[in-house]
Amino acid sequence: MTTKKCVAVIGASGYAGAELVRLISGHPHVTLNLITSRQYAGQSYENVFPAFTGCMNLSCEHFRSDEAIQKADIFFLALPHKTSMNIAAPLLDAGKKVVDLSADFRFKNQSMYETYYQSHEAPHWLRKAVYGLSEVNKEEISTAQIIGNPGCYPTSILLPLIPLLKEKLIDSTGIIADSKSGVSGAGRSLSLGTLYCEVNEGFTAYKVAEHRHEPEINENLSLAAGENVQVLFVPHLIPMSRGIVSTIYARSQASEVKLRECLCEAYKNCSFVRVLPDGRMPNAAHVRGTNYCDIGIKYSREKGMAVIVSTIDNLIKGAAGQAIQNMNIMMGFSETDGIDAIPFPV
Amino acid sequence: MTTKKCVAVIGASGYAGAELVRLISGHPHVTLNLITSRQYAGQSYENVFPAFTGCMNLSCEHFRSDEAIQKADIFFLALPHKTSMNIAAPLLDAGKKVVDLSADFRFKNQSMYETYYQSHEAPHWLRKAVYGLSEVNKEEISTAQIIGNPGCYPTSILLPLIPLLKEKLIDSTGIIADSKSGVSGAGRSLSLGTLYCEVNEGFTAYKVAEHRHEPEINENLSLAAGENVQVLFVPHLIPMSRGIVSTIYARSQASEVKLRECLCEAYKNCSFVRVLPDGRMPNAAHVRGTNYCDIGIKYSREKGMAVIVSTIDNLIKGAAGQAIQNMNIMMGFSETDGIDAIPFPV
Amino acid sequence: MTTKKCVAVIGASGYAGAELVRLISGHPHVTLNLITSRQYAGQSYENVFPAFTGCMNLSCEHFRSDEAIQKADIFFLALPHKTSMNIAAPLLDAGKKVVDLSADFRFKNQSMYETYYQSHEAPHWLRKAVYGLSEVNKEEISTAQIIGNPGCYPTSILLPLIPLLKEKLIDSTGIIADSKSGVSGAGRSLSLGTLYCEVNEGFTAYKVAEHRHEPEINENLSLAAGENVQVLFVPHLIPMSRGIVSTIYARSQASEVKLRECLCEAYKNCSFVRVLPDGRMPNAAHVRGTNYCDIGIKYSREKGMAVIVSTIDNLIKGAAGQAIQNMNIMMGFSETDGIDAIPFPV
Amino acid sequence: MTTKKCVAVIGASGYAGAELVRLISGHPHVTLNLITSRQYAGQSYENVFPAFTGCMNLSCEHFRSDEAIQKADIFFLALPHKTSMNIAAPLLDAGKKVVDLSADFRFKNQSMYETYYQSHEAPHWLRKAVYGLSEVNKEEISTAQIIGNPGCYPTSILLPLIPLLKEKLIDSTGIIADSKSGVSGAGRSLSLGTLYCEVNEGFTAYKVAEHRHEPEINENLSLAAGENVQVLFVPHLIPMSRGIVSTIYARSQASEVKLRECLCEAYKNCSFVRVLPDGRMPNAAHVRGTNYCDIGIKYSREKGMAVIVSTIDNLIKGAAGQAIQNMNIMMGFSETDGIDAIPFPV
Repeated sequence: MTTKKCVAVIGASGYAGAELVRLISGHPHVTLNLITSRQYAGQSYENVFPAFTGCMNLSCEHFRSDEAIQKADIFFLALPHKTSMNIAAPLLDAGKKVVDLSADFRFKNQSMYETYYQSHEAPHWLRKAVYGLSEVNKEEISTAQIIGNPGCYPTSILLPLIPLLKEKLIDSTGIIADSKSGVSGAGRSLSLGTLYCEVNEGFTAYKVAEHRHEPEINENLSLAAGENVQVLFVPHLIPMSRGIVSTIYARSQASEVKLRECLCEAYKNCSFVRVLPDGRMPNAAHVRGTNYCDIGIKYSREKGMAVIVSTIDNLIKGAAGQAIQNMNIMMGFSETDGIDAIPFPV
Repeated sequence: MTTKKCVAVIGASGYAGAELVRLISGHPHVTLNLITSRQYAGQSYENVFPAFTGCMNLSCEHFRSDEAIQKADIFFLALPHKTSMNIAAPLLDAGKKVVDLSADFRFKNQSMYETYYQSHEAPHWLRKAVYGLSEVNKEEISTAQIIGNPGCYPTSILLPLIPLLKEKLIDSTGIIADSKSGVSGAGRSLSLGTLYCEVNEGFTAYKVAEHRHEPEINENLSLAAGENVQVLFVPHLIPMSRGIVSTIYARSQASEVKLRECLCEAYKNCSFVRVLPDGRMPNAAHVRGTNYCDIGIKYSREKGMAVIVSTIDNLIKGAAGQAIQNMNIMMGFSETDGIDAIPFPV
Repeated sequence: MTTKKCVAVIGASGYAGAELVRLISGHPHVTLNLITSRQYAGQSYENVFPAFTGCMNLSCEHFRSDEAIQKADIFFLALPHKTSMNIAAPLLDAGKKVVDLSADFRFKNQSMYETYYQSHEAPHWLRKAVYGLSEVNKEEISTAQIIGNPGCYPTSILLPLIPLLKEKLIDSTGIIADSKSGVSGAGRSLSLGTLYCEVNEGFTAYKVAEHRHEPEINENLSLAAGENVQVLFVPHLIPMSRGIVSTIYARSQASEVKLRECLCEAYKNCSFVRVLPDGRMPNAAHVRGTNYCDIGIKYSREKGMAVIVSTIDNLIKGAAGQAIQNMNIMMGFSETDGIDAIPFPV
Repeated sequence: MTTKKCVAVIGASGYAGAELVRLISGHPHVTLNLITSRQYAGQSYENVFPAFTGCMNLSCEHFRSDEAIQKADIFFLALPHKTSMNIAAPLLDAGKKVVDLSADFRFKNQSMYETYYQSHEAPHWLRKAVYGLSEVNKEEISTAQIIGNPGCYPTSILLPLIPLLKEKLIDSTGIIADSKSGVSGAGRSLSLGTLYCEVNEGFTAYKVAEHRHEPEINENLSLAAGENVQVLFVPHLIPMSRGIVSTIYARSQASEVKLRECLCEAYKNCSFVRVLPDGRMPNAAHVRGTNYCDIGIKYSREKGMAVIVSTIDNLIKGAAGQAIQNMNIMMGFSETDGIDAIPFPV
């Protein structure tokens, strides 16, 4: 039996950070050796997330890169944009593997990143970063040192669309992604908009055609299609904690059978993508707590439109779970290690 | 002071029927004189809906048309399709006013109705029926004897689109309506799919491009546009009790200002349509319990697409409230009588 | 026709303040003439609560007592404890009527108030204040100038217990109140504990035997019983927006029939208390949006215990609705004016 | 490496059955070899619970005892009362191990069972059955052939009370258990009361002092106390899917420290009971998806009352998880095998 690798979660006080902690705690090949939080430094982690009482005896520390380098081999960064790149650079310089959950290492096109976020302060590492859409970029991920872990909405949209665009089964223009997310996607920071009473029994669109996940989606679809793809992306907030459902509209001349076959073929060796049979549409509840992405397809011949519906748990396949999946690929572990939970029936 | 008119609710055991009962009980110019239910005949109404304890002392009766004709001047039918037309006919023959909440009197095109539902058994009355989209067909409604009260989804989609199509500010082809509804839209009948645990913390699409509200939407949009309009309609289920949000995509060369102006102009004298200012999107929570339809607009010049988001309370503006509004118009009452509730702040 | 009275809501940015605004807007005999908010001063009210778009054209102002005195005859204060008494005093000195929703004027026993809150700075007015439990103190309320509007939990507990204690049908010792509240009771301030994801799908007790509503309950029960009553009060948080359910345990030698008769008799002329028949227990959903207090009773002869379950909408009968009811009584309006909403069936 | 044992889930179409299937599928030492359902016989299991798509390739079969005996060594019965005992008997006669989740094998006192349920048709096996409250009856469970798996409410009440009664730290009379359960406890059968819209945003007490879990609680508390204990048990329904919170009131002369020490001592070697430190109360959300029982304690010296709050996931520690735990004990597996999930942070 080999020694377990030591890992760190930098920025463990948000929901994605906490899911990383949970998943790492159950992972067979790694040990959690460091968790950091600026806000909760010095506090026991079960104080930050009482659900973990008795399951986790680490306390939050302030991040100091010299200490961190001593404590872990693999780093998960669950930090705000900008903070992340500055913390990643010294870790990477020291030869550590990094999976970054912010947007800082997601873009191939630095100027696109800088248009939507801010100037990049570690462009050298940005150029080496691999976009961690596990099923699509598996080979590059396996040899990467730094992964830009995909956004939650992009994951739900890219997984169904990339194979279809590659095979030219859908038009590359006029694609619409009408996405709906549970509230945990907004994070654990205090804001009026995420108070219980403001969300409960409501439903609304936000940042219509203005969300920063749109350029991330477009860059990756364009790469897949070999031409410029510009999706119209409209996110909404669902009154539930976890889960994203993306309903995607694309013009197509293919049949429903062909569209389904294409996705089945693309993901036939992928444990976490479930292409649903004819007549079934995915439900966010059926992937909750798991790393699955479920995809349903309906083709309207009359309208010449494909309707593709995908769902993920935004905190798992849309964040922490895919980050672990990427680590598994990088480290040569089995791809499902630590993220093989079976969905709850209810 | 004038005498109050007597009204009846035929089929009072469902959610729309109960909302009719509630709204009529608070209406200044009518008195509820008869409620019927096959399932609960003989039971006090507060037994069927305990919330009404002490507010309502009628009991449910079996429907008998001769008795019913004695008891009321105005009839609201909240019955399943097909049942409705057979019950409506004798009431209409006796000169009564009828607002029918089923699909039986919604279609101008009888064969379209028969394609999606069943053969029509009161075609004579179907031809006389007026589609009760109150703001749009107000004049015809005012002189109608029989109203086909619109479906909930169609109401949310037609109100924003009709003025834009009339003014040719959006393309009549390629329109997509991605609608989301609370669970009460599925009614009070027992079904696995509406059990609490099956709905809660989930979100799913259903009847994609197959829902019977699609032909209803298309007929009315086509009439408004003066040409054939075929919307791609995709409904989803939201884990909440009340409310519909429709996110509508339409190609357009107009500006956001122009689109908004068109809707503001169209509804400037309408108490129940609120066109939201620049930068605001509607929230189902903000119309809950009211007869409002809120509409938000975002135009993407880059994509040449208008995104129009509308919301209603499916049981009120999408059913019982609009039915009362239609009665108000038919009877010459003030249009807001009995349906002027101010939204809850939370 | 008489002129409408002008009223002001001081502290309109919280949930209780917004409910006051909503209810006053629909009230037949008063006009809302001033709303204030420190945080949102200068902003239109529909900006603070977008649900009110088009229903309300006032903007929030800073409170200045000289201006306020010019603008209104009746003042509702929905302010934090301590702030309230200092704002109330000059209004009262100017002869205005005040209904205060904070704890500042609820206690007869000043030192009890000071033990649980802080030193009182308007003791002169405290002595003149009437505890606004409308059904119980109606006569005193009718001539009061300053009302201490009851807390939400106390209202749900006092209404069922006071008649039973007065008639000595339950023991005055050993009473337990196990109360459960929706999240709006915690207010609209930002806090981790009221974020959607922290509350949803959870249920917890808090401030067990330490909540500041306990002395308020005890003072009023003791007055009713004519002896010292000390209730054990345990509040819990329910994952829903509105509503309180209190399950109350009291030793009793009476029969269930007698207990029910006592409550029926006590409230026979009260529009807002519904004593449920044998075999029915109240449901928070059945009073939501209304000023009702529903009460159910079960007696266990074997254990010698009465189980009394009451429910109110915490924002209405537990706050704004009872405040309006108190104004109605003070001003000689009909007691149900503006608060006669019929419950939603669902 | 040893061969895995074959297990069967008889009655797999309810929520507890599905949780059994989920947990067994992830268990290291057993293989699921048979699932039965009368209603869904012949259907693939992922048709019954679509969440399991791709995770589970068995289909539901009709139960036939001769076939069943061939297929499995260990049987979990998730059946209605009465059905269960008749199915269990031949399996037991054939030497199989059975964990029964119905009430049929929970009572030591047959006449008590018959008073609250029906006449018992396998009294011979009832006498041999062990009550499967894992932490309390571990030794007897380890050698049992038939386990009566505890009810969900009883589990939440017995775990905190048994040690306190044994140590005589609380009075054995006058105990009140005010319990609140998520909706999944009511099962997956169709009923008006568990429709989404009937439950959502509501809260109610039901079967007050009449629930059949009361005699089950009393029998086991009496055994622990060595005297007759009669709890007043009042269940309520929470608008959430999973979780029970029991708030228990007991007279006591002990201090809070002593009460906590007693429970800590009793469960010091138990993986699944978490006695919370001073000042913390359990939250149903923190045990969701796990086999934990969390317990919080507050003592009011003034009232001489202990308030003990416990929480479990009703489908796991309250049903399927404890059933697996009992199997682990019976079979000599590690007690946490297959049920060692770490709670979700949110």
